[in-house]
Amino acid sequence: MTNRVYNFCAGPCTLPLEVLEEAQQEFVDYHGAGMSLIEMTHRGPEYEAVHNEAVELAREIYGAPDDFEVLFLQGGATLQFAMIPMNILKAGEKAAYIGSGAWATGAFKDAQKYGDAYLAWDGKDEGYTRMPASNEIELQPGTRYLHITSNETIGGIRMTDWPEVDVPMIADMSSDYMSRPIPWQKFDLVYGGAQKNLGPAGAALVFVRKSVLADCNTDIGEYLRYSVHAEKNSLFNTPPVFTIYMIGKVLKWMKAKGGLSVIEQEAADKAGRLYDVIDNSDGWYICPVATENRSHMNVVFRLPSEDLEKKFIKEADAAGMKNLKGHRSVGGCRASIYNAMPYEGVDALAQFMEQFRKDNG
Amino acid sequence: MTNRVYNFCAGPCTLPLEVLEEAQQEFVDYHGAGMSLIEMTHRGPEYEAVHNEAVELAREIYGAPDDFEVLFLQGGATLQFAMIPMNILKAGEKAAYIGSGAWATGAFKDAQKYGDAYLAWDGKDEGYTRMPASNEIELQPGTRYLHITSNETIGGIRMTDWPEVDVPMIADMSSDYMSRPIPWQKFDLVYGGAQKNLGPAGAALVFVRKSVLADCNTDIGEYLRYSVHAEKNSLFNTPPVFTIYMIGKVLKWMKAKGGLSVIEQEAADKAGRLYDVIDNSDGWYICPVATENRSHMNVVFRLPSEDLEKKFIKEADAAGMKNLKGHRSVGGCRASIYNAMPYEGVDALAQFMEQFRKDNG
Repeated sequence: MTNRVYNFCAGPCTLPLEVLEEAQQEFVDYHGAGMSLIEMTHRGPEYEAVHNEAVELAREIYGAPDDFEVLFLQGGATLQFAMIPMNILKAGEKAAYIGSGAWATGAFKDAQKYGDAYLAWDGKDEGYTRMPASNEIELQPGTRYLHITSNETIGGIRMTDWPEVDVPMIADMSSDYMSRPIPWQKFDLVYGGAQKNLGPAGAALVFVRKSVLADCNTDIGEYLRYSVHAEKNSLFNTPPVFTIYMIGKVLKWMKAKGGLSVIEQEAADKAGRLYDVIDNSDGWYICPVATENRSHMNVVFRLPSEDLEKKFIKEADAAGMKNLKGHRSVGGCRASIYNAMPYEGVDALAQFMEQFRKDNG
Repeated sequence: MTNRVYNFCAGPCTLPLEVLEEAQQEFVDYHGAGMSLIEMTHRGPEYEAVHNEAVELAREIYGAPDDFEVLFLQGGATLQFAMIPMNILKAGEKAAYIGSGAWATGAFKDAQKYGDAYLAWDGKDEGYTRMPASNEIELQPGTRYLHITSNETIGGIRMTDWPEVDVPMIADMSSDYMSRPIPWQKFDLVYGGAQKNLGPAGAALVFVRKSVLADCNTDIGEYLRYSVHAEKNSLFNTPPVFTIYMIGKVLKWMKAKGGLSVIEQEAADKAGRLYDVIDNSDGWYICPVATENRSHMNVVFRLPSEDLEKKFIKEADAAGMKNLKGHRSVGGCRASIYNAMPYEGVDALAQFMEQFRKDNG
């Protein structure tokens, strides 16, 4: 395709072009079956092969140990905010949350409805510009888990080092999912929406420790129970067929690239090119994030004035670099460079940023 | 496409070919934007137009009055089984359920977890072969709502006449959604999964009365609250973009056909052709369903022996008529003929049934 743009949207976001083209090719007649995959029963061999391949690739690429179940659920990360305390938190137990930004706040507020949840650290007064050091996290006695958000899309911050705490962690990894290896032994549950690094919107991918599943609360609706989905391999009810199918294709693409070690290095490289432009601009571009917590997925930056920011976003758009506006709650600019953003897109943006500064500085 | 089959699957199921072909054509480069619709932000003008058109078409085609909100949610009808009592049922109130089959049972079991739910009629002892007459429905004092399942896909039964009761009704219409006009004044809430008459899997369409929304319970997770989704026009979190986009296309196709009155007549015609073959077979084909409750969506029938049923299903498959096997819990044969099943498919099956009987009778 000749008019392909670079899409820096925070999610839903750019997907690998080859994945889109492959899906398009087989969209109406799936592998010669005389029907589309989205018309097929989820209990038949064609979809089951798609489903099981996505589950196994997710496990393999992320290196999830055998004592984790892999679940595809609906409702995005947002429904997980409620499902986690509903399933896991028991009477008398406390749940600790790191207040790192808007998404962490959403998770925390839901937990307060289902149990005794508290903020073990809060970055609000600092404008959510950094993550806490381990010795800043204040856990109370009786804490069942510490909930973290590994990357905040709005603030553009990431948890570079994992907290050293003596309770299991639960992590919302929506916006840097499968962009680096993670220390599985620290986690009871890892989750995220698909619509950033994994595929289109419509599913959450959840890894949950089997020993946790065995001890979940049971007095909740069937769809809301992790153990029900685990027993049925995420086929308890009709799954979001198309989204899982596309995730499978993206996972295959990730594997073909070389897996997480390659992707982690690419993410650091790509983010580094943009942060270098910012840091070498004599303060013309400013990144408000603490250096050690700069996201490799969402690069946020300001220009000398809001008028220049508007001009920047408009001219970048005209040059085929889309969706560089920062989140409405913080303003400024944001370049989301998820796994599927090619080097060429980042280089084009870096060059544009340098030229724009020369022209307007 | 030359090898298109007739897909009689109970869901996910056949979709209009022209809808699939249109989606394929614009899949990689949506309307010249240089990206796919599934890569676009759900806060941008392109997706918002798609979203709002689907919402408005759903309202228009189904004739939903202005005092209903139209919501697109994730988790299918199954999550609604829990959300309904969580949101609507208050302490001291009772919820009545019609036990009409497997889906009604799922809804009832979830309701028991969240309140005082009871079966106001139960068809279990009759093998779920009919729906109750209004005077068989036994409501208890203090009943907040009566939950019905308008069509049961497994039993192949439908609620031909709506119950005359003096409490508001809540209806799971998943498997005959938008196949006939409904008496809105009887309902507080109408819901269903998309993956039968409306589109691919991945969304539930919910119509909920505004006065109900204003009185919902609030001490539940944000994703689980109808009022939260209503306030944000189903854009509280990232919606299932692709599924809603496809639903919009199916709704446009329904409107172009002539809307519900045409669809209702077509459904009666199509089902009638198959029931005629059954009724004119001198008992060789048997439909176990009470005549007045025969589904227009799922035609279930038995042959003289299980061996003949296996042979029938196998030979039909070879002739391009797929997925005619009955649900594993009841056996036999089932032809699901949702809105998108063309007359040609039904005629082909009717002719095949007659020929098969001649050859094997």
